[in-house]
Amino acid sequence: MQNFVFENPTKIIFGKGQIPKIGKEVSRFGHKVLLVYGMGSILKNGIYDQVIASLKKAGVDFVDFPGVKSNPVLSHVQKGIDLARKENVDAILAVGGGSVIDAAKSISAGVRADHDVWDFFTFSKPVTGALPVLTVVTVSASASEMNSGAVVTKEDSCQKYCIVSPFIQPKVSILDPTVLFSLSPEYSAYSAVDVIAHMLEGYFNNTASKTPLQDRLVESLMRTVMESTDIIMEEPDNYNARANMMWSAIFGFNGLLTAGIGNVKMPAHMIEHSLSAIYDIAHGAGLSIVLPAWMTWALDTKTERLAQFAREIFHVKGRGSRPIAQKGIACLKLWFESIGSPVTLKAVKIPERDIDKIAENAFALSQVWCYEGYTKEVIRKILKNAL
Amino acid sequence: MQNFVFENPTKIIFGKGQIPKIGKEVSRFGHKVLLVYGMGSILKNGIYDQVIASLKKAGVDFVDFPGVKSNPVLSHVQKGIDLARKENVDAILAVGGGSVIDAAKSISAGVRADHDVWDFFTFSKPVTGALPVLTVVTVSASASEMNSGAVVTKEDSCQKYCIVSPFIQPKVSILDPTVLFSLSPEYSAYSAVDVIAHMLEGYFNNTASKTPLQDRLVESLMRTVMESTDIIMEEPDNYNARANMMWSAIFGFNGLLTAGIGNVKMPAHMIEHSLSAIYDIAHGAGLSIVLPAWMTWALDTKTERLAQFAREIFHVKGRGSRPIAQKGIACLKLWFESIGSPVTLKAVKIPERDIDKIAENAFALSQVWCYEGYTKEVIRKILKNAL
Repeated sequence: MQNFVFENPTKIIFGKGQIPKIGKEVSRFGHKVLLVYGMGSILKNGIYDQVIASLKKAGVDFVDFPGVKSNPVLSHVQKGIDLARKENVDAILAVGGGSVIDAAKSISAGVRADHDVWDFFTFSKPVTGALPVLTVVTVSASASEMNSGAVVTKEDSCQKYCIVSPFIQPKVSILDPTVLFSLSPEYSAYSAVDVIAHMLEGYFNNTASKTPLQDRLVESLMRTVMESTDIIMEEPDNYNARANMMWSAIFGFNGLLTAGIGNVKMPAHMIEHSLSAIYDIAHGAGLSIVLPAWMTWALDTKTERLAQFAREIFHVKGRGSRPIAQKGIACLKLWFESIGSPVTLKAVKIPERDIDKIAENAFALSQVWCYEGYTKEVIRKILKNAL
Repeated sequence: MQNFVFENPTKIIFGKGQIPKIGKEVSRFGHKVLLVYGMGSILKNGIYDQVIASLKKAGVDFVDFPGVKSNPVLSHVQKGIDLARKENVDAILAVGGGSVIDAAKSISAGVRADHDVWDFFTFSKPVTGALPVLTVVTVSASASEMNSGAVVTKEDSCQKYCIVSPFIQPKVSILDPTVLFSLSPEYSAYSAVDVIAHMLEGYFNNTASKTPLQDRLVESLMRTVMESTDIIMEEPDNYNARANMMWSAIFGFNGLLTAGIGNVKMPAHMIEHSLSAIYDIAHGAGLSIVLPAWMTWALDTKTERLAQFAREIFHVKGRGSRPIAQKGIACLKLWFESIGSPVTLKAVKIPERDIDKIAENAFALSQVWCYEGYTKEVIRKILKNAL
């Protein structure tokens, strides 16, 4: 096991009927919040009303800032920063999924900066402070509600980049699984893919050995995510399946799985960021295309690990690690398809001739993230496995 | 899954060579600490010197408070409170295992109280504040380094009771697995038993259903603890085995396993507290006697759960849940014996005629903990399974 520091102070309030607690939690951090949300679904499903009633009851003023889209964009974050400054809010309350939470986190850091918030994403400047962020989660996948990361896309240059800082880690997150009952089958599937990709990237790309606990945690979570998603596809309002999924999503990317496994790389995320940035496809959809393609590319270098995955998750039996690993990748693709998530570029109408452009974009991010070995040629090879 | 709140803000600094970081961490909370430790082993193995050098480097004064024994006692805690007040320390630094950390936590709460610290343990008074606690862990079992509990024994009345409060949760804990290299085989075994008992009590005694993730986490951890301990018994200085054990111990009782499973009871701990209180035997040794005895008592009421345990952990096969469950209990006892932990009262020289006295003592705690159903007769029955 490798040395590590683990610190995750977010308070999680989990379960049905918990959203009305948000006002009291926000009031611990101030009396006026920027209320960040998306394209209006929370207005229709009653969550907005619940949140507003709770804020009012706790004597907290709020300023509406709707309009965060999937793959949140820099220009919108910048507007949020301007509004937060103008209104002199004490805290940011995100009501939404990963995109909304990531926008809120970016705003919280940007408000305190004397430079363009994008400088954080290119790692030109470090985050040195942020307004407190609280969340009410409506889509469960990114674990952004219990981690210190945020991803934003700069539209003009098609750059989907990220920041990581303890300052933007949410203070409190409320998760009510019943909120997920109305999540579409597509986004339920994409959420599962995202959670799985978070876990598997670390499982395949780390610098430790002999970390059986971390391996078993990933395998346990993966089994739970898959069986919960299978239930959700049949019964979208199955409380326990939604709850198991919601809690698993947090485990998938809140630091517990990667503590002790050393330096973790996320190459499938890196390449997927280009798909989302250029084509604005859902992150989970992009990941179900790129992850198996990356696994196929890694067959020769990570044979044993891929075989372990195949044996543990899909009970693949037989002789020879390479054929077992190959079967595992095939099983994963089949499962992604079975829940309705695409596994080829063709399925999302990205033509082969675009591969150079995507590789160019992903290579730029590989330079920012210092991912040695991910040359344009390598990225092209990976993408060709997804044709 | 049941509703829950999860919040665990302890910063964990894990790995070899990390102890010298303690001074800087302590200095975030003040300039003078009470240094709580045990019977002097840290003076022999060099840990004391490392800690002192780090405190001095960070400009932190310290007041020595040694002498915490296994099963820490109230009278010693009271002396610590007096000393902390007299010396006007800003924080408490525990360097030791669960006993030392629990004593330090109790002192931290007692310093701020205007009444006897024991009132916290009888739940007559709530903890409303405490000095910051930091820890350097030298025995890994209790998870006290990352939770909000503490156990102390009142010697005159043989009461081994506990407090739970977020105020006493450590701010920072440093865990260096190499420190465990010199831990005796006996205490390495008792540590494993304690970690396993923490996990299994919640696994067997909760009010939720359909929590497959929590089940799998327990099963994953149990497998890891058993295989790590088997390695440790052969190679006490196997770094990865010690590290896996050290990190598993934290998972075992830091709230992650019980989040979502509702109301958890720990009857084996309740009864073991009486064994430790009356006979001063090691907590782990007491648990390896009581836990299988409790499982045997529960054979009829928790048959399916015990069978799941037997199948998952010991790969017991066959027909009929009851015989499978029985085999699982037998396997657990065999494994406890194989690592050198006792499984009968006789093995620790407690005679059958003492059962009434132990039941009397444990029943008193069952009243404090509000464990309905644990009458003296029931406790006697459980203890008779351990003859």
